[in-house]
Amino acid sequence: MKNGIKKIGVLTGGGDCPGLNAVIRGVTRTAILKYGLEVIGYKFGYKGLYNNDYMPLTLQRVSGIGHIGGTILYSSNKDNLFDYTVEESGKKVKKDVSDVAVQNLNKEKVDALIIIGGDGTLTSARDFARKGVKIIGVPKTIDNDLHATDTTFGFNSAVNVATEALDRLHTTAASHHRVMILEVMGRNAGWIALESGFAGSADVILIPEIEYDIEKIVEKIKDRENRGKLFSIIVVAEGAKPKGGKVVVKKTVDDSPDPIRLGGIGNKLAYDLEKYVNNHEIRCTVLGHTQRGGITSTFDRILATRYGVKAVELLAENRFGNMVSLQGRKMTYVHLENVIGSQKMVDPKGELVETAKSIGISFGD
Amino acid sequence: MKNGIKKIGVLTGGGDCPGLNAVIRGVTRTAILKYGLEVIGYKFGYKGLYNNDYMPLTLQRVSGIGHIGGTILYSSNKDNLFDYTVEESGKKVKKDVSDVAVQNLNKEKVDALIIIGGDGTLTSARDFARKGVKIIGVPKTIDNDLHATDTTFGFNSAVNVATEALDRLHTTAASHHRVMILEVMGRNAGWIALESGFAGSADVILIPEIEYDIEKIVEKIKDRENRGKLFSIIVVAEGAKPKGGKVVVKKTVDDSPDPIRLGGIGNKLAYDLEKYVNNHEIRCTVLGHTQRGGITSTFDRILATRYGVKAVELLAENRFGNMVSLQGRKMTYVHLENVIGSQKMVDPKGELVETAKSIGISFGD
Amino acid sequence: MKNGIKKIGVLTGGGDCPGLNAVIRGVTRTAILKYGLEVIGYKFGYKGLYNNDYMPLTLQRVSGIGHIGGTILYSSNKDNLFDYTVEESGKKVKKDVSDVAVQNLNKEKVDALIIIGGDGTLTSARDFARKGVKIIGVPKTIDNDLHATDTTFGFNSAVNVATEALDRLHTTAASHHRVMILEVMGRNAGWIALESGFAGSADVILIPEIEYDIEKIVEKIKDRENRGKLFSIIVVAEGAKPKGGKVVVKKTVDDSPDPIRLGGIGNKLAYDLEKYVNNHEIRCTVLGHTQRGGITSTFDRILATRYGVKAVELLAENRFGNMVSLQGRKMTYVHLENVIGSQKMVDPKGELVETAKSIGISFGD
Amino acid sequence: MKNGIKKIGVLTGGGDCPGLNAVIRGVTRTAILKYGLEVIGYKFGYKGLYNNDYMPLTLQRVSGIGHIGGTILYSSNKDNLFDYTVEESGKKVKKDVSDVAVQNLNKEKVDALIIIGGDGTLTSARDFARKGVKIIGVPKTIDNDLHATDTTFGFNSAVNVATEALDRLHTTAASHHRVMILEVMGRNAGWIALESGFAGSADVILIPEIEYDIEKIVEKIKDRENRGKLFSIIVVAEGAKPKGGKVVVKKTVDDSPDPIRLGGIGNKLAYDLEKYVNNHEIRCTVLGHTQRGGITSTFDRILATRYGVKAVELLAENRFGNMVSLQGRKMTYVHLENVIGSQKMVDPKGELVETAKSIGISFGD
Repeated sequence: MKNGIKKIGVLTGGGDCPGLNAVIRGVTRTAILKYGLEVIGYKFGYKGLYNNDYMPLTLQRVSGIGHIGGTILYSSNKDNLFDYTVEESGKKVKKDVSDVAVQNLNKEKVDALIIIGGDGTLTSARDFARKGVKIIGVPKTIDNDLHATDTTFGFNSAVNVATEALDRLHTTAASHHRVMILEVMGRNAGWIALESGFAGSADVILIPEIEYDIEKIVEKIKDRENRGKLFSIIVVAEGAKPKGGKVVVKKTVDDSPDPIRLGGIGNKLAYDLEKYVNNHEIRCTVLGHTQRGGITSTFDRILATRYGVKAVELLAENRFGNMVSLQGRKMTYVHLENVIGSQKMVDPKGELVETAKSIGISFGD
Repeated sequence: MKNGIKKIGVLTGGGDCPGLNAVIRGVTRTAILKYGLEVIGYKFGYKGLYNNDYMPLTLQRVSGIGHIGGTILYSSNKDNLFDYTVEESGKKVKKDVSDVAVQNLNKEKVDALIIIGGDGTLTSARDFARKGVKIIGVPKTIDNDLHATDTTFGFNSAVNVATEALDRLHTTAASHHRVMILEVMGRNAGWIALESGFAGSADVILIPEIEYDIEKIVEKIKDRENRGKLFSIIVVAEGAKPKGGKVVVKKTVDDSPDPIRLGGIGNKLAYDLEKYVNNHEIRCTVLGHTQRGGITSTFDRILATRYGVKAVELLAENRFGNMVSLQGRKMTYVHLENVIGSQKMVDPKGELVETAKSIGISFGD
Repeated sequence: MKNGIKKIGVLTGGGDCPGLNAVIRGVTRTAILKYGLEVIGYKFGYKGLYNNDYMPLTLQRVSGIGHIGGTILYSSNKDNLFDYTVEESGKKVKKDVSDVAVQNLNKEKVDALIIIGGDGTLTSARDFARKGVKIIGVPKTIDNDLHATDTTFGFNSAVNVATEALDRLHTTAASHHRVMILEVMGRNAGWIALESGFAGSADVILIPEIEYDIEKIVEKIKDRENRGKLFSIIVVAEGAKPKGGKVVVKKTVDDSPDPIRLGGIGNKLAYDLEKYVNNHEIRCTVLGHTQRGGITSTFDRILATRYGVKAVELLAENRFGNMVSLQGRKMTYVHLENVIGSQKMVDPKGELVETAKSIGISFGD
Repeated sequence: MKNGIKKIGVLTGGGDCPGLNAVIRGVTRTAILKYGLEVIGYKFGYKGLYNNDYMPLTLQRVSGIGHIGGTILYSSNKDNLFDYTVEESGKKVKKDVSDVAVQNLNKEKVDALIIIGGDGTLTSARDFARKGVKIIGVPKTIDNDLHATDTTFGFNSAVNVATEALDRLHTTAASHHRVMILEVMGRNAGWIALESGFAGSADVILIPEIEYDIEKIVEKIKDRENRGKLFSIIVVAEGAKPKGGKVVVKKTVDDSPDPIRLGGIGNKLAYDLEKYVNNHEIRCTVLGHTQRGGITSTFDRILATRYGVKAVELLAENRFGNMVSLQGRKMTYVHLENVIGSQKMVDPKGELVETAKSIGISFGD
């Protein structure tokens, strides 16, 4: 590059998400084909940066990965090098090891870093930028809950999986006149529940942003009965909450013959509904990890590639310390200092919720 | 028909299963187009027969349903008219109400019945046959565990769903170096776990027919590590059991803030493995009801249609009291007296298990 | 509605497109559930309006159609009531029969119309608006080539089908070292080719907006060979053109034993490439009508529903004569007078094309 | 192995087919894990054997390929080493070069060969067996038209693709009241057309085994009209023939502006039908190469793996010169001398055709 950058590093942090490989491919191909750079990928996110554990990213290495879920660079969930757990004299202590990372970059002559991750990963990215490392961030949140960009890759794929599950549950619900509950991802923001519930013709959508009143849900089920619809489909975000209530999602173990017990909002809701609804069987399915992987959707492949290519362009334009951002139909950027901790929640009065209500979907409020 | 049959009834009993609608369509079209019969469908299985609650099955009514899961006739799980719960003088009592059903058949001039269901449903079918009702049975078990026929419809669709879930889990498992457990259907027979594990490249398959030793599973995980494979995929049938052990699958409720607790073999295994495997995260997904519904697979559409058409042909041939049976590539029949209670289990020494072991899949034994 | 509207009509015009049923469902449910309106659907687009041929649209009628392609109202391709072909005294003549339509609306007491269609259909919608009919338009173009709205429903579904075809062609191309050409929709605008080529990892994308030079394509194939890639994938929009050239797509018939002969740009390209590329087999597949139908994608189901709901809201707000329009993430409207004839083409210098070029995709220029 | 086999070679010949990689993976894993063999794969079928061009097949190399279409060994369509085209003194001559292949096997100390292919490839396999090479054949035909085995891998995947296309065409056909024709693979045997037509609810299925009378097809279309079904779906195998007629499928080129002209039975039928059916538009889609590739179906993954594992077992049992064969549910073997040239055609009087006719499907006879 004209600005002297000759070699760059890439890393992925946090939970995996469909599209990560498309970003890596987009970065690598653009860096090599357009700018003649050398590219390496650190393994396991920041851990690889600390251990100087990396793989060369060549055209051959990124060939055929664009549509595959996961990340060829591996990822790890919690590795903050500014507050890292190391062993010293046999004891685990927390310390700032970010200088080790900087030394590794210097040793390998890596001129700049492209860091792909969510809020935690990008916080560290900002901190490295503050230390003078040339950084471009790429936002990753399967929940689509980042304020600084319009849409994140992986979200469309996850919504597709959840919608397909709803499509499947419909035929069983209708055949057995059941109330079927599907618990999907969304600890803080209900986007996946909202969009999949919308697309999958759910009757009730429960999201963290709107506390639900169980009697409103029962009312909806009864309304449907009165119209001859003897089944109902409920999609619930894992972070949904009953009005005034508090849901403790925890895993406990005891000595009984079935030692593992798991509770989540979906199962809680099934239990609670049984007190009100005695003419239908109620079943809950927790979609879990199947929402994350597999084949990346067409939409996400394109979006992720655009993020990756733009990240390299921002390096070429000396826009260090920024994060790639989609605004409307345009790929642009925002400064990393301005993106941390700013979540995008579903607006309970927004057009999407209002539109869903217009076609008769209940939010339990 | 030459034998005087002019009107037939159809009903579906037991849990829903992809292909039921294709059977109903096959029966209806053949009965109308080839034999000029009138066809009605009883709703909710035997309950509809008892309540004389039915719908006419016309060409129009069965149009476009062949690929859709569930059953347009609805189904109910436990309705044995020979031991039926009725209210008498305000109390619930069990009694044999099969004569009511026979009277209803006479009243509507229904000459013969095609009954689609599993072991319980077909037991009643046999009992009606013993009472002189002209019956043809069609076997339905999504678990493929019926001895009297080679393959049942719905099974291929269920295996497809489970395999797709395994495909998805692979990318996440590989990205995070996790042990991923998928719990699939199969209370008594492990066919779905076996075939999906095979097709989905599972490393370990646990089935009811082979009690597992957890240390063998750990061994397999370690073996993979030694070959540089830092993740493992386990598929477990809901009825799998540890060696000598007993798994109690139950749902309990208490007064704690998370009142619902669910235990199953998948979650138990995840918990147990944690004691042995501390360098990987372990996650369990329970596939649940998404295995039953949605779009019926191509394979099952054809198979189910053949079952349905053959059922009508058996009526035309006066072969009452028989069940349609697939043997090799041939549709034939067996007498209902000979099919009840005979389950087809996975042979722990059979070709499929041996083949799976040859490519390195562990069964925990 | 407060403005006195009590009954509305809906019609779909032009080629079918995934999402039409979701619009119809969104319109019907909102009209009935939120505003208590009566809704009817004219059959076969304007033809139904002329013949007063319609069906009532009830909650029951639109139940379960949201994810299904096609249109329950049927459609016809060319029926301009302002220049309509009628038989008079045994001869076919063209005349303006729009007054018949207006009389039919009056007769049935239809207060307003929601018209879903492309450029031709919306031109008539505008003309009816000029005559004083209360009209809201909903844009439909599977090619996504309408200037007055950001994204149209159906497009994402079509891109998915084309991308899946490219995914399939990859394995065969790689196994046999072939050049595989896929011809997709896009007579004037190349959006489907662009996005599917992007997502499906095509090596060459040919679109109407960028005339191609066959020698540049050959160059790309040779470049890949030099990197050890012995196959190439080309996606070509049906309206793509060679530089300076002119492609005549026509259907001819002669008296030879194989009387039908079809030519399109994909097959022409295959033929032309054979002169340059003699070490690979070259194959062309024309995707055709499979791009239009089947299951509507999640993305399009949501988008189409939003269009439908917004159309009803615009009626309630007295915004007659407008078309629903998506701008950024917001559903809004533009006047029908301003939308006709304004196509949105791929910008040969725009971000998408540039991004594609950055990762090494050739546009033959 | 106890019989002294230490190293084996694998090759794939003929057109690609979903499941080839699963066979290769099954062979490699069994050979290494169960028998401790060394495995190599010849590239491009027999061509690689002639040129001694191969790749080592390790556990790493076959990891993750089981579900992917195509063949990692590449394939070539026509390479008979017993009648091979070589250049001698600047001229191309045909000669028997099979001894070169045998020398290469000796040079590399390859003790036995597993050869995966169709009729042509297996004919050569038999000829090498006659020369004393230790050979096991694995049958491959996407058309499922081999007599010596019940079902071949790849067929189910191809039927799935064709059925999905029919599902898609249905919604468009119904919306526009069209006659939609889909041309699928099947030059000699009509299995793909038969099964996909069955599963995809086609109204007419045309196969090579039953010559069609166009007037019967028209009759079927009219019958449907009379029942209010204003569209029809026809699936036609590429080798279908009109009664008494002869279809020449060829590619011609002339100097007209559209130099490429392609004719196939699907387009011919569309043309011919237009003379009879003037109240519907008629459209033909040729599915082509998209039937071969992509993700291998669950069914084919299992079947192909079983073929591969059994091939290695046959080597261990000294059953050289045999081909793996599925008979009923059992994997067994037949001698290569007995399998060549014996095609399995659809029986026009068989159960499948009769069953299809019972539900009203026309075969044009």
